[in-house]
Amino acid sequence: MMQRDITLALFFAAALALPAQAQDPQSWCKSKWGANDEIGAANLITPESVMAATKLVKTGKTYALGGETNSKTPAFGPRSWALVINQPGQVGGGGLGPTKTNYNDDIYMGYVGTGSQIDGLGHIGVDNVYYNCNKNADFVQANGLKKLGIEKIPPLVARGIVLDMTAITGKNPIPEGTAFNKKEIEEATKRQGVEIKKGDVVLFHTGWLSLVGKEDKRYISGEPGVGKEGAEYLVSKEVLAVGADTWGVEAVPFEKGVGVFEVHQILIPKNGTYILENMNTGPLVADRAWEFMFVLGFGKITGGVQAIINPIAIR
Amino acid sequence: MMQRDITLALFFAAALALPAQAQDPQSWCKSKWGANDEIGAANLITPESVMAATKLVKTGKTYALGGETNSKTPAFGPRSWALVINQPGQVGGGGLGPTKTNYNDDIYMGYVGTGSQIDGLGHIGVDNVYYNCNKNADFVQANGLKKLGIEKIPPLVARGIVLDMTAITGKNPIPEGTAFNKKEIEEATKRQGVEIKKGDVVLFHTGWLSLVGKEDKRYISGEPGVGKEGAEYLVSKEVLAVGADTWGVEAVPFEKGVGVFEVHQILIPKNGTYILENMNTGPLVADRAWEFMFVLGFGKITGGVQAIINPIAIR
Amino acid sequence: MMQRDITLALFFAAALALPAQAQDPQSWCKSKWGANDEIGAANLITPESVMAATKLVKTGKTYALGGETNSKTPAFGPRSWALVINQPGQVGGGGLGPTKTNYNDDIYMGYVGTGSQIDGLGHIGVDNVYYNCNKNADFVQANGLKKLGIEKIPPLVARGIVLDMTAITGKNPIPEGTAFNKKEIEEATKRQGVEIKKGDVVLFHTGWLSLVGKEDKRYISGEPGVGKEGAEYLVSKEVLAVGADTWGVEAVPFEKGVGVFEVHQILIPKNGTYILENMNTGPLVADRAWEFMFVLGFGKITGGVQAIINPIAIR
Amino acid sequence: MMQRDITLALFFAAALALPAQAQDPQSWCKSKWGANDEIGAANLITPESVMAATKLVKTGKTYALGGETNSKTPAFGPRSWALVINQPGQVGGGGLGPTKTNYNDDIYMGYVGTGSQIDGLGHIGVDNVYYNCNKNADFVQANGLKKLGIEKIPPLVARGIVLDMTAITGKNPIPEGTAFNKKEIEEATKRQGVEIKKGDVVLFHTGWLSLVGKEDKRYISGEPGVGKEGAEYLVSKEVLAVGADTWGVEAVPFEKGVGVFEVHQILIPKNGTYILENMNTGPLVADRAWEFMFVLGFGKITGGVQAIINPIAIR
Repeated sequence: MMQRDITLALFFAAALALPAQAQDPQSWCKSKWGANDEIGAANLITPESVMAATKLVKTGKTYALGGETNSKTPAFGPRSWALVINQPGQVGGGGLGPTKTNYNDDIYMGYVGTGSQIDGLGHIGVDNVYYNCNKNADFVQANGLKKLGIEKIPPLVARGIVLDMTAITGKNPIPEGTAFNKKEIEEATKRQGVEIKKGDVVLFHTGWLSLVGKEDKRYISGEPGVGKEGAEYLVSKEVLAVGADTWGVEAVPFEKGVGVFEVHQILIPKNGTYILENMNTGPLVADRAWEFMFVLGFGKITGGVQAIINPIAIR
Repeated sequence: MMQRDITLALFFAAALALPAQAQDPQSWCKSKWGANDEIGAANLITPESVMAATKLVKTGKTYALGGETNSKTPAFGPRSWALVINQPGQVGGGGLGPTKTNYNDDIYMGYVGTGSQIDGLGHIGVDNVYYNCNKNADFVQANGLKKLGIEKIPPLVARGIVLDMTAITGKNPIPEGTAFNKKEIEEATKRQGVEIKKGDVVLFHTGWLSLVGKEDKRYISGEPGVGKEGAEYLVSKEVLAVGADTWGVEAVPFEKGVGVFEVHQILIPKNGTYILENMNTGPLVADRAWEFMFVLGFGKITGGVQAIINPIAIR
Repeated sequence: MMQRDITLALFFAAALALPAQAQDPQSWCKSKWGANDEIGAANLITPESVMAATKLVKTGKTYALGGETNSKTPAFGPRSWALVINQPGQVGGGGLGPTKTNYNDDIYMGYVGTGSQIDGLGHIGVDNVYYNCNKNADFVQANGLKKLGIEKIPPLVARGIVLDMTAITGKNPIPEGTAFNKKEIEEATKRQGVEIKKGDVVLFHTGWLSLVGKEDKRYISGEPGVGKEGAEYLVSKEVLAVGADTWGVEAVPFEKGVGVFEVHQILIPKNGTYILENMNTGPLVADRAWEFMFVLGFGKITGGVQAIINPIAIR
Repeated sequence: MMQRDITLALFFAAALALPAQAQDPQSWCKSKWGANDEIGAANLITPESVMAATKLVKTGKTYALGGETNSKTPAFGPRSWALVINQPGQVGGGGLGPTKTNYNDDIYMGYVGTGSQIDGLGHIGVDNVYYNCNKNADFVQANGLKKLGIEKIPPLVARGIVLDMTAITGKNPIPEGTAFNKKEIEEATKRQGVEIKKGDVVLFHTGWLSLVGKEDKRYISGEPGVGKEGAEYLVSKEVLAVGADTWGVEAVPFEKGVGVFEVHQILIPKNGTYILENMNTGPLVADRAWEFMFVLGFGKITGGVQAIINPIAIR
């Protein structure tokens, strides 16, 4: 893929003009799930909530919420991706043994944050403090996170809802920087006749993903998304995860007065709420499948920060 | 992780003594799902089959069937794995912007076939012919498969069953080379009171995975598993996928008269049936959770051969 | 860099029309340096030849013959390159210890054959037979070559000469497909008043490298270079290595009747002669530095096929 | 290779007890070679100095000063290395075109700081300030250094000397933590009858490299090497580079009162002097080749921090 040469500076221009906010690490980071908790809102998943999610399945239709990741996938910052295929032990052609067995192996070389992904609780911090008061100097190592790694996350099975924000705004795609706050979110839930419930996965449909492969530079330079108030509102609803068909889920350029990826900070370190990026919400919206059973399991890379994902929606 | 220095030759000794078998590429490879099919047994998944799987959920308990992948994971052949964590744009400490945002990024450098994985239909061939008569020279490129790539696979949602072979054999772990053929498989289904149905995911529990971290060399040098007749039997049942808590699912050393990974050939290229390796079957067996809803979605790496997975079992 | 989607097929069109040539592996591959030899023409280097090369130094001026390798470097086939910088153990800012030590580490993820490179004797074969009758099935493994690896190559110190072919052809750059055969090579040596001597490194200046960053697609799709007869002529002169300011040193499209990279085959497997690609010959030619001391040492990656290089010319 | 699980903490224990030293970024970092300089002591190389080095060659004997880098190479911290060999476009066996051309390609996935290496001027900093007052926040990006990258370094051709410290200490290998300061260095130069001259490459022979493959854990946990006073002494001699047959060139455990890799700080950021690690000094010492022509060119990876090297000594 083409290397992203958009520096972080582009996103910081407005934010840097604001006065630095003092943080008392002790005041905001203590998790309601206890001092040793590493999974945040995944604690909301119970056998009862899973049963309830399962009961949402009425037709058996499934939706792949993940899109493709390859070397052309537009991604944030310096991220790159390469796939290599080789055939170990088979040079010279032919197959192995009497039944002439051939095999291909594959190799990844690249940034995990490329394409459809989940942000684990080790992804975002506030002044060097991450979820549940974990200081980065204590748990981040160059070969993996010692705490908050994605391998800690249990199966994410929940009720999922998709909110069609293109219907609310009348635009498709919704322009970059458009923020979804409490007013807009409530408008969508009302229009669709769905509630946001505790433990839900809430996905926002913006149409932004349709720019991929057509206007990659525009795609990765901004996006519509959740605003600061919207993030606080979703947190008040105790959701499990917030996702969108955008690369970063929050409004970029950031709203006036909002810090750099501050919505990420509100969701992840401050509330242990997961973020799902580049979700393929279009087919759900096309079917008016407003609520569904959401199931996500991803490769448990020890010490990983994010994961490339393909959640399944079933209804 | 320690590099595997076990050459493929170790597995070929017996096999090489056998006469080469002539293959008529046309006779075996035509898929019953049509000349353009790329997904094999995934065609068995229908809304009805998904509904039926969903109805198996009675308690809401979930099981992560994937284990961890890291640099110490024992893996076949030359495979290696490394994870790198970095903090782009944040050298010099502190966070970005007024709310002092920190972030970690992660990078994979390694073979996909490390740990819990699915073998896609582009993984195994017979004399240079892969599933549905695709010749490797036509579809395999060094930067990705042009056909049969894992991105083609739809959400894998099905009824899953686990067969406790340790109870059948009386051994835990079952010794390497022990083959499960029709007799053993039927014994297990009978003992547990479960049937193998069309479209099922069938997992074999052998106890082999318990060797990881204790006897890695032994672990990766052999395994109990499905035998040739067993593979044909499972195929006759039209299963979606066959998995086990072993690295390769089939009996190694191979049975007498059986070719190199011939069970892989019977399942994957000959019948478009998926293979799931290093499945964490222990907890299912401990709960006597013989049947369950099986849900698997994995990152859609364009042109990929395998994927690192963590399927979810729900019952 | 942008993935090269130029398939090998583009280069094979003319070649494929030719009848396959039968090869008797025994007849061509036996090395004059003995059955165990793994270094080919590097055997030509002796203390005497090194002394002679050293005596060519009259001014002390040095030239870096290597150019830069990065993600934008145009390269053959599916090759890609990525560099990652991280700061292990230093998250949270500041330095380590009382003197506040900071450090950056770097990581390569990419194909070696990107940019200025040397082709080792394990790079090219003829019908599965490589230099000195080594069959690929015997020495090629997925994690390194067991023979002919670049770590075997001794320091390459020799007399070097550069032949300005732009002066001979009157074109700069010389058009793709232009072949340098005996006539052209002799014309250049005569014009410049230099001889090709045994053990020399012979570099061809074509001006082709100037296309990089301007016409990358054209650059990588063809090139002027050594023709088949030219290769045989150079071999008859017992040179150590042949290089050029092109990506592949030989004329592409291949000459009529010449096989796919047949010049590579004549030089490398058939005569153990090294190839140096993307050599920065321009400054030597600008200074009319026709002969010089050539010194090349590269990282000894065990089992490597090629190496990224920056040879030094001194005169 | 086996992952290094030696945390940086092991090296910091003594150092952390010391009071932090205040640094005035302005006072120490201004380079004598001017505000825009990026190559430090490489400025000492002139045509005259190169001529003088060349004249040291009396016999034409060459020495490869680099050792092998592979997955088993013991390396500092989280560093890992993997090599992958593939054969793009050649699945199904046989060669390409009428002359049946085969080729192997290779791929690196790993940390550059593995094995014989040079530390560029972007490798080490003091309280976020690097060579010539470059602040890391200004020039370090995740995909390459914007200044001080190794591609800036000109050919390193100089007089080289090797000091046999095993003869001075009477031990081989010299025990870890043994520091070479002015007294020891002068003893060696006197014993050998060589002077340290301006622009020299000074290599220390300790015997430590002989532990590789035998006592890897001990090898990478400490080393004999240059002490703080020794570093200042070498700087006063205006050397080009300091190297050794050790992984880090300086005494580890650090001397009492010396900071974490403070010798690296004195050499690299404070004086723009290069460091060469894991140099194969044994053969030079065996031949009593005290002085020699030193030639080093390495692949110019744009924005690189270090490079894997194989310098050539000629005498």
